[in-house]
Amino acid sequence: MPADEFVVTPYEVRGKVDYDRLRELFGTQELSAELLARLRSLAGGELHPLLSRGIYYSHRDLAPLLEAHAAGAPFFVYSGRGPSGPLHLSHLAQFDLCRWFQERLHVPMYIQITDDEKFWSRAGLTREETLRWGLENLYDILALGFEPKRTHVFFDSRSIAALYPLAIRVARKITYSSVKAVFGLEPSANIGWIFYTALQTVPCFWPSWAEGKTVRCLIPCGIDQDPHFRLTRDIAEGLGYPKPALLHSRMIPGLLGEAAMSTTGSSEDSALFLNDPPKTVERKVRNAFTGGRASVEEQRRLGANPEICSIWALWRSRFADSDEQLARLTADCRSGALLCGDCKGQLLERIHAFYRTHAERREKAKEWAESAIVTEAPRPV
Amino acid sequence: MPADEFVVTPYEVRGKVDYDRLRELFGTQELSAELLARLRSLAGGELHPLLSRGIYYSHRDLAPLLEAHAAGAPFFVYSGRGPSGPLHLSHLAQFDLCRWFQERLHVPMYIQITDDEKFWSRAGLTREETLRWGLENLYDILALGFEPKRTHVFFDSRSIAALYPLAIRVARKITYSSVKAVFGLEPSANIGWIFYTALQTVPCFWPSWAEGKTVRCLIPCGIDQDPHFRLTRDIAEGLGYPKPALLHSRMIPGLLGEAAMSTTGSSEDSALFLNDPPKTVERKVRNAFTGGRASVEEQRRLGANPEICSIWALWRSRFADSDEQLARLTADCRSGALLCGDCKGQLLERIHAFYRTHAERREKAKEWAESAIVTEAPRPV
Repeated sequence: MPADEFVVTPYEVRGKVDYDRLRELFGTQELSAELLARLRSLAGGELHPLLSRGIYYSHRDLAPLLEAHAAGAPFFVYSGRGPSGPLHLSHLAQFDLCRWFQERLHVPMYIQITDDEKFWSRAGLTREETLRWGLENLYDILALGFEPKRTHVFFDSRSIAALYPLAIRVARKITYSSVKAVFGLEPSANIGWIFYTALQTVPCFWPSWAEGKTVRCLIPCGIDQDPHFRLTRDIAEGLGYPKPALLHSRMIPGLLGEAAMSTTGSSEDSALFLNDPPKTVERKVRNAFTGGRASVEEQRRLGANPEICSIWALWRSRFADSDEQLARLTADCRSGALLCGDCKGQLLERIHAFYRTHAERREKAKEWAESAIVTEAPRPV
Repeated sequence: MPADEFVVTPYEVRGKVDYDRLRELFGTQELSAELLARLRSLAGGELHPLLSRGIYYSHRDLAPLLEAHAAGAPFFVYSGRGPSGPLHLSHLAQFDLCRWFQERLHVPMYIQITDDEKFWSRAGLTREETLRWGLENLYDILALGFEPKRTHVFFDSRSIAALYPLAIRVARKITYSSVKAVFGLEPSANIGWIFYTALQTVPCFWPSWAEGKTVRCLIPCGIDQDPHFRLTRDIAEGLGYPKPALLHSRMIPGLLGEAAMSTTGSSEDSALFLNDPPKTVERKVRNAFTGGRASVEEQRRLGANPEICSIWALWRSRFADSDEQLARLTADCRSGALLCGDCKGQLLERIHAFYRTHAERREKAKEWAESAIVTEAPRPV
């Protein structure tokens, strides 16, 4: 692949991604300073770091959703996880942002655990594995601080009675041709995987269906997931529901310099998994790809390059306490004042602290996870 | 279409069907006198008229199922209905036979009401209609005399929690290519319809899954429905279940001379619907196509032809009290002793009596129908 080419689909991220060009290719809108200012004002004067630091950079229809919210119309946030194994840090970004919306704008959160889809799309997984990882992943997600009373979980195989009546109506609107065009699923794909996009669409409309009134949907996700919801947006109005709004993030790079931290990457050392023990975390961070120079002397003299650094990406996405701290750290990196070893040491302290806190919160989340799983349809059709 | 050509698929029956040739085309086995004798002996010395009169004429793997039953191994009967409107008389044949198996061999009956599939495969139907007809059809089926304690209903949209965990495993084994090859579903088909064959397969394996031991499945159906279960038979052993056995019937001809009584026929006068009032029944029967001659005189002299007669087909499939009565009536038809008007008059008396009895039994069936609907999965995977 030539150096300036890249591939971004829901099932693959490869090459050096040009995010502005990707936004143009996908036909999404820029997350402008003006729109961010509007959101900041609605959210009580602050923005989540994922927004203020430019990791979320693109959207569809966020402006009308915020206007409607300002005028008193309800919305909710929706995100999901295909449980194929442990979560890694970059999986958390979309849920971090959802949690922030819930806290700041007091909106309901719907989480979908797609244990059926993962079984259909990954030949090597057993049903027992997708069920088990579904629960494990759910605990990790809830541990980020979601409010039990405003958080609802669709665990596909267990929530199917709640989802199916609406899925029946959604599925009639989607053809195999569309699924092939959007996801590239060949005729040799199994019929579960082909059907699946109907189930992923259902949560976008479910609260409107359940409440019998319009409740808008906002989906924070990696921009690679945008195609999933293009089909949803195409059919929404035909079913009498508003198109879901989307907020798109850049991918968080892998520790070995890949375009995205991935569970299907060439090495499991490319990602920090939430179940990695401290020694493994330390090893992975110490071995991580940075923007540093060949020698200490050279780095002191020329500075390093945060743009390409997997460690800087972690500071940016989660571990810098403030935008100011991130700016200072970035300046010190560029000037050569901060060496990679020291930077990694400081980051490790924060990662270890996060893992410790997370483990405690996860135990608490286990106590209410079951009660958040939706199992009944609000109506028969 | 040339006179000797015909089309038989799950979605279309057209032309003059050569049933022996069809059996050869489909590669099914002949329902031999020997096998019927074996069944008669297991069933206490009698055969159901649909068997003794040759309407059921083909099978797959009935012999090993009967052998296993004789040796004490359990089996069940399974049949279903896509609820697009009222049932007509020919819909009842497969359920009549199931009921007979239940009564004679004391086996469980599983009925599937495919309200999802009908919505997906018929663009003109609403969900409200498929739900309503699903219940109406179910009452008619149960009214045939099924035993509440041995009869279980999968009403797809309401039983999905019971069906889905197994459907997930089934769907991974079936590709779009297979669905296209078997059902002819083009890429423009909706993804619900494409997925549907997974759900129609589930009941074949469900009792084995639920009981954790092998329970064989026998499916009486029109031979046009055979393709549905070819896919099922192909994947059964890969999932650890026995292939379902099938018993295939000829189609019951339409009243206007069509190859099959059909709800999608050119005229609703081609079928006797269970909700037709007596006057409508009378009109349809009086107008029905027969094998009679152009004049009474000619018929007295040359006799009529029962082979092509829609009225004779009704005597044969349901209304003759005994094989002897049918033989007598057939002889009188051929000889010219029985004229079409008289024959229709005698048949009408029986049809009216059946409708009256059916209406009473249907009211009783309503009392227990809800309790027969299965809503819970026996296990999570």
